[in-house]
Amino acid sequence: MDNRDSINNPVLKAIFSRRSVREFEEAAIEPALVRKVLEAGIWAPSGLNNQPWRFAVVTDPEMIGRFEPLTRYGRIVRSSRVLIPVFVDRDAMYHEVKDHQAVGACMENMLLAAHSLGLGAVWLGEILKSGPAIRKLLGLGDNLELMAVVAMGWPVNKKRSSTRKSLEELIVYTDCEL
Amino acid sequence: MDNRDSINNPVLKAIFSRRSVREFEEAAIEPALVRKVLEAGIWAPSGLNNQPWRFAVVTDPEMIGRFEPLTRYGRIVRSSRVLIPVFVDRDAMYHEVKDHQAVGACMENMLLAAHSLGLGAVWLGEILKSGPAIRKLLGLGDNLELMAVVAMGWPVNKKRSSTRKSLEELIVYTDCEL
Repeated sequence: MDNRDSINNPVLKAIFSRRSVREFEEAAIEPALVRKVLEAGIWAPSGLNNQPWRFAVVTDPEMIGRFEPLTRYGRIVRSSRVLIPVFVDRDAMYHEVKDHQAVGACMENMLLAAHSLGLGAVWLGEILKSGPAIRKLLGLGDNLELMAVVAMGWPVNKKRSSTRKSLEELIVYTDCEL
Repeated sequence: MDNRDSINNPVLKAIFSRRSVREFEEAAIEPALVRKVLEAGIWAPSGLNNQPWRFAVVTDPEMIGRFEPLTRYGRIVRSSRVLIPVFVDRDAMYHEVKDHQAVGACMENMLLAAHSLGLGAVWLGEILKSGPAIRKLLGLGDNLELMAVVAMGWPVNKKRSSTRKSLEELIVYTDCEL
């Protein structure tokens, strides 16, 4: 297999075929798979390797239900089997922008891992408005600031498409023909 | 192949085996591979799919040389064959934290793509202090804010290790045994 061929390069294939999944099957997710997704997250790079990310894992349907009114996307939350609220630990941070970027890298690793395992997942950002409520719900300290929530489950089988701007629109400078 | 087996799941394998590469061989990188890395970047998720990232591609050795004094890591810059300064377009942003996270997701896609192609890459963050100088060097507008630089090349063959906190240290709440 030539890894330079993106059709056959499984990493590129995963990156290009990952989609946000918002409707999930009833079936539960084995804890070992949730663990794999988290392990993928923590292998993201971070500035000075400070690993500012922290995770909550919510699988109890009643607790998942309590997240429902905290976002406009309650329907997605209700359908999911696992919620992973991701926080930064303010005590572990060293640079606002770089730490937020690190959390983004961690999130992408989790989404790609979920996709590679056949799971479906979506990055919920709008729910950030409920950060303090979620911290309270989970009984967490003030040092933990909500960064995003991953909602996860086995994906309902349907076609999902997405679009991106062309690379040409996004390259602001180049000194070679790409 | 069972994708749930992380030894054989190529995406998890890439996530766990990726390392920052800071010493590069002389050989140039074909533009088609640089393009693949960028394409991986733009398939990251972003809030409202706003795709706030913008890219510069620098391969000319003289121009790469001009980046050298702009960071404490000039030695890495000098050794690299391609620099990809990544910016956010302030005119495309909608939420500071979420846009910075999106750039982090985009960075991780690029690093994973490079790794999957056999390339070596490192995320340079310290160079952010030279954002305005780099914008000037490349003749870019004030709307572009430097977020990070990817330095890339064919990796010098050596063993690279890294460490992470245990998952147990990073989980602040769970309602199930993982």
